[in-house]
Amino acid sequence: MAGPGEHFLAEIREQPAALLRLLEHDADYDDVARTLAASPAEVIRLVGHGSSDNAASYGVYVFGLLARRTALRDSISLTVYYGAELDFAGSAVVALSQSGRTPDVVEYVQRARRAGAATIAVTNEPGSPLAEAAGSVLPLAAGPEHAVAASKTYLTQVAALALLAGCLAGRRAETVAALRTVAELLEDILAPLEDAVRELAVAFAYVGRMFVVGRGLEYATARETALKLTETCRVAAEPLTATDLAHGPIAALDPLFPVWAIASRDEALPVVVEAVRRARAAGATVVASGNAAELVDGAAFRLPVPEAPDAVLAPLLSIVPGQLFAAALAHSKGLDADRPAGLTKVTLAR
Amino acid sequence: MAGPGEHFLAEIREQPAALLRLLEHDADYDDVARTLAASPAEVIRLVGHGSSDNAASYGVYVFGLLARRTALRDSISLTVYYGAELDFAGSAVVALSQSGRTPDVVEYVQRARRAGAATIAVTNEPGSPLAEAAGSVLPLAAGPEHAVAASKTYLTQVAALALLAGCLAGRRAETVAALRTVAELLEDILAPLEDAVRELAVAFAYVGRMFVVGRGLEYATARETALKLTETCRVAAEPLTATDLAHGPIAALDPLFPVWAIASRDEALPVVVEAVRRARAAGATVVASGNAAELVDGAAFRLPVPEAPDAVLAPLLSIVPGQLFAAALAHSKGLDADRPAGLTKVTLAR
Repeated sequence: MAGPGEHFLAEIREQPAALLRLLEHDADYDDVARTLAASPAEVIRLVGHGSSDNAASYGVYVFGLLARRTALRDSISLTVYYGAELDFAGSAVVALSQSGRTPDVVEYVQRARRAGAATIAVTNEPGSPLAEAAGSVLPLAAGPEHAVAASKTYLTQVAALALLAGCLAGRRAETVAALRTVAELLEDILAPLEDAVRELAVAFAYVGRMFVVGRGLEYATARETALKLTETCRVAAEPLTATDLAHGPIAALDPLFPVWAIASRDEALPVVVEAVRRARAAGATVVASGNAAELVDGAAFRLPVPEAPDAVLAPLLSIVPGQLFAAALAHSKGLDADRPAGLTKVTLAR
Repeated sequence: MAGPGEHFLAEIREQPAALLRLLEHDADYDDVARTLAASPAEVIRLVGHGSSDNAASYGVYVFGLLARRTALRDSISLTVYYGAELDFAGSAVVALSQSGRTPDVVEYVQRARRAGAATIAVTNEPGSPLAEAAGSVLPLAAGPEHAVAASKTYLTQVAALALLAGCLAGRRAETVAALRTVAELLEDILAPLEDAVRELAVAFAYVGRMFVVGRGLEYATARETALKLTETCRVAAEPLTATDLAHGPIAALDPLFPVWAIASRDEALPVVVEAVRRARAAGATVVASGNAAELVDGAAFRLPVPEAPDAVLAPLLSIVPGQLFAAALAHSKGLDADRPAGLTKVTLAR
């Protein structure tokens, strides 16, 4: 039996290999994208819970930027619980679930499909109820994930959305090549980042609450980083867009209330840098990660990553510091990241 | 000059009157709804920051349930910072800003309008840049709001969205009548709730972090309650859907980490009750508010409100306990809810 947190750490380390396995299925993604391109779907509805919903946040941007499509994180409860009779005829659904067994995601897909939506399941379990419910199935191919806290399935979900959007834009080969480069970069950064997060974990041993800020493409990374810290380290880490921080939460900051900023070189970077300036003025300790970590003034800790071959793929690299930091902090607190209290691998909760 | 928190409390108390003032403009709402009903807009894009974005969360449900329209909280950064070239021809935009001066909301509206969207500004300042940028303007008529923490402008934004959706469904008279009844109910509950929250404020004097859970219609209430606590009381209160709580954050709970549940009689109630059961099992202290507060097992504190004449209007009543509790807790902590540290009334931050 694995020791505390060993699965989580092993699965973080396995991410470059998991990404390469996903890319073996690029023809499947291209097929589904061709069908989608030929359909009248004007809106892409993304659904999922937890890490899958965090990946969906990325989907909003990657479909908008690569494929000029409006994608939204749709309300599951509006359709499944309230039974709202929306018009699904002009929609495609991309449903995200590692296990393919999340009950209300499965039910959402069944209802949307009956109401005329094109439905696509993106899952690590192609034999699951979700795969059965959807019109098309795209595999994550991440391999079995044993830790309750997701890592490689989040990263492959993000990559799957980028691949689907790239194919939809008619840029399959270019997207696959860029994602292969990302896999190489991931391989390079894992060991140095594992060393770098140890120091930070010692400094943060007594932190009970934190804000994690990002904007645009990196809002997904902020959400997933916060979720890892909350579920594995018992830190109340709240994800915020850099702008939302200024609209209220900044008033709660003090020197014992750190802010983690995801800073990457793209059009949203100035907003993130400015939010950090305000957080620093309020006395917060700042951690900066991302490929523009060194451009964040006054950060007490920096966990930089290299730039991706395309700025739209930066979140695949930016998530790694948060994952490794969560693993290190859980370890230093004596918590088991593989089996957090009160959680199970497949969340059947509605 | 008003004493600490006096404006905030006065504006919470003024909400029934503010709601009645909004209803004097029902003909304006009906006119805009008729134009919208006749337009090809298939998707309603809601944009706003802070409390306005919380009201937008409600809009997703009220447009879906009353008017069978797909509404989404759109990404401002995708259009304004990244310059994504989305198809806006089939969209209507409802832009929410109390001041009408939020820079990137104004810019979003300008870009969406140029790209072919029908644009509607819902604002407390009909002479503002936002009103000028939009094709139509709907007044909140809440009267001047002096406290930095929004209360009556949030409530009137929620009511404005319900009124617009009701008119869009061809149910103007019925919606106006129901909202008038809500104004009467609000008037009745204010004084008793002010008494009830005092006891809770004493018990929560040392709470530093909290989860606020709701689902569906009441997710907006959970978000706004959490924002009030964060900005006025320096509590790190994170809003979560009841389902998201089970997908990770529940692992962070302990007896010093309370959970506030918004429980109203509607189709999402069983999910909220079940989430609270799990939170209780993890040792959390539970506060329950909403018109189904007494159906939440094991709550240490309950702040019930009456049912609205239509379940879809419940959030107009459910928000009041959180507002009054924030005012009372800020007061007992010696904080000034009118002027939280680091915030200004009009947030010009991008």
